[in-house]
Amino acid sequence: KQPVKLLVLPGDGIGPEVVREVGRIIAWLEKKRGLTFELTEDLVGGASLAEYGVPIRDEVIEKAWAADAVLFGSVGDPKWGHVSFDKRPEVAILKLRQELGLFANLRPAKVFDALVDSSTLKPDVVRGLDIMIVRETVGGIYFGDPRGIETLPDGSKRGINTEVYTTSEIQRVARVAFDLARKRDNRVCSVEKCNVMESGLLWKEVVTDVHAREFPDVTLSHMLADNCAMQLVRNPRQFDVLVTGNLFGDILSDLASMLTGSLGMLPSATLGAEQADGRRPALYEPIHGSAPDIAGQGIANPIAQILSFAMLLRYSLNLQTEADMIEQAVSNVLASGLRTADIMAEGMARVGTSVMGEAIVREL
Amino acid sequence: KQPVKLLVLPGDGIGPEVVREVGRIIAWLEKKRGLTFELTEDLVGGASLAEYGVPIRDEVIEKAWAADAVLFGSVGDPKWGHVSFDKRPEVAILKLRQELGLFANLRPAKVFDALVDSSTLKPDVVRGLDIMIVRETVGGIYFGDPRGIETLPDGSKRGINTEVYTTSEIQRVARVAFDLARKRDNRVCSVEKCNVMESGLLWKEVVTDVHAREFPDVTLSHMLADNCAMQLVRNPRQFDVLVTGNLFGDILSDLASMLTGSLGMLPSATLGAEQADGRRPALYEPIHGSAPDIAGQGIANPIAQILSFAMLLRYSLNLQTEADMIEQAVSNVLASGLRTADIMAEGMARVGTSVMGEAIVREL
Ligand SMILES: CC(C)[C@H](C(=O)O)[C@@H](O)C(=O)O
Ligand SMILES: CC(C)[C@H](C(=O)O)[C@@H](O)C(=O)O
Repeated sequence: KQPVKLLVLPGDGIGPEVVREVGRIIAWLEKKRGLTFELTEDLVGGASLAEYGVPIRDEVIEKAWAADAVLFGSVGDPKWGHVSFDKRPEVAILKLRQELGLFANLRPAKVFDALVDSSTLKPDVVRGLDIMIVRETVGGIYFGDPRGIETLPDGSKRGINTEVYTTSEIQRVARVAFDLARKRDNRVCSVEKCNVMESGLLWKEVVTDVHAREFPDVTLSHMLADNCAMQLVRNPRQFDVLVTGNLFGDILSDLASMLTGSLGMLPSATLGAEQADGRRPALYEPIHGSAPDIAGQGIANPIAQILSFAMLLRYSLNLQTEADMIEQAVSNVLASGLRTADIMAEGMARVGTSVMGEAIVREL
Repeated sequence: KQPVKLLVLPGDGIGPEVVREVGRIIAWLEKKRGLTFELTEDLVGGASLAEYGVPIRDEVIEKAWAADAVLFGSVGDPKWGHVSFDKRPEVAILKLRQELGLFANLRPAKVFDALVDSSTLKPDVVRGLDIMIVRETVGGIYFGDPRGIETLPDGSKRGINTEVYTTSEIQRVARVAFDLARKRDNRVCSVEKCNVMESGLLWKEVVTDVHAREFPDVTLSHMLADNCAMQLVRNPRQFDVLVTGNLFGDILSDLASMLTGSLGMLPSATLGAEQADGRRPALYEPIHGSAPDIAGQGIANPIAQILSFAMLLRYSLNLQTEADMIEQAVSNVLASGLRTADIMAEGMARVGTSVMGEAIVREL
């Protein structure tokens, strides 16, 4: 049996310390589940800037192509606030998405029963919440041309970005959303600003068309992005799967995550297109950022990173049982009362990063 | 003394019935406060489409220029879902903003003590919330060229919109935000996606520059739009004034309104530039839409429309006392237990649109 080839990119801030906890899970999988992993680790973000002067090297992109999946930590470091636009740490993740064609970002926003009180929303509004946001990640205003800042004759400036979406870009991400819906509550809500933007009008038309031709059994609705932001606050449980463009997805998925009250718990997967050889590039990362303020203190919550790894097992390796086991272990450890600082509540036991990681492996 | 010239545009759905309640306040101002009003009423949105085949006539724009201020209801009607992109009811408000140069949309998100429980957020998180969002409304991706949907050689399509911001567009809206902050808690948070968009990078630079030169006494911070959406849910009271572009402002201000739990309570003002003759075009409208589902039933909440009129008195006519009186009357009526259906709660007295309007005038 071939070993699973993983590229591990811990990145900046708390990235390295939470990725370390995944190491324990991998060791357990090798020992108890007969799997073998071949890990390659490299630098991205501020860590790569410090060593190589660029946020990501072409070599790392090549390694990502060669791997079965990429496990990503987080990038971003205030130390690098002064670098030029094309050198900022965020370029690492943007370039990985674009070069590997990782077009479908899956962001579950799920409330764990044990943590329902950590939301700023009333427990009755968020209990049992389970939304999946599918965000397009290689198109839209993030990557459209023309872009840049130009100086006008009078010395003043003009900043430009372009939102572009084509039929095929919309089709492929819509298909991912409809497919996922079939395994869930069979409902998709497509989000755009078709009342203001023609790119949103095309978005709506193409999603409607894919639905009618290929997924008539799924219930489809449409919503304007501003209304969606409101509805996520008013009654988030009305949603099952949401599908939207890069920019709206960025904002709405962060909003949805915050409804759960526990950002340190939320994983994500970003999937590319199936290649000729049947492989599909994919990257897994927590929703949370690099949290430089608490980095290096051993207090970060490793659960989002561990659940990202569970998504990797599920989507890239088709190891459903192992993914379920890890998710269940996380649930049990929370139910047993263990909490990292970010989700600490009265009467619970406060633990650091590695005690939490150990507890999850012990539970396994 | 010259009469105050108002253009009244009730629009669609519940627009006409809530605007009618402002009529009572105007009658009271004429009778008790010695003011005189000259009202002109016209059609916009679906109502104008039905009568004239366009969402707004040039004649209405001219009337808006001639007036001291515009009182706007709401536009939008599912009946007109099939019309072409340039005829949709929303064009009425977009065209008014652009033709009158109404670049600064002021959207307060305020929690009334009497309504703190109607938020889906915990009372402890939103009690006393008082944010002012200043949204740019004549630039950005709403109006940038090129835009449209083109057909590619293979028959597939490409939707395009362009985000453009110039130094002077950013400067003028930043000044409005800093000015407002000085009358409030003296803090401005500027919101963009400078880590992904160059137009956001220019936004941040220009706001920083206006701050340093003209408003060094105000506290300025910067935040990414995705993080802002999270922070509005996590701890909304951290904000005083927010300033942002057209698209982010659309989403974040709707999100912020929903935190209050009572959309039917929230007014807005959209201000243009001071003209050579000292006048300043301005439009006042509630945050809520035309709510076609409850239109014509006499149950809509008229408070947002009445408070929009109070903003009109404050910003266009400099009638601070009268504006304060109206706002106080609304507070008192709520404290006395009267509620329209949208804000109904146990133990309160449920009333319709006109009883609520009458009660506010009686309180005055
Ligand atoms: C780091 C940044 C470029 C990125 C984005 O805006 O896509 C992040 O916010 C995300 O959502 O993954
Ligand atoms: C009606 C629509 C065009 C408008 C907008 O997107 O600006 C509305 O949502 C608003 O916020 O005033």
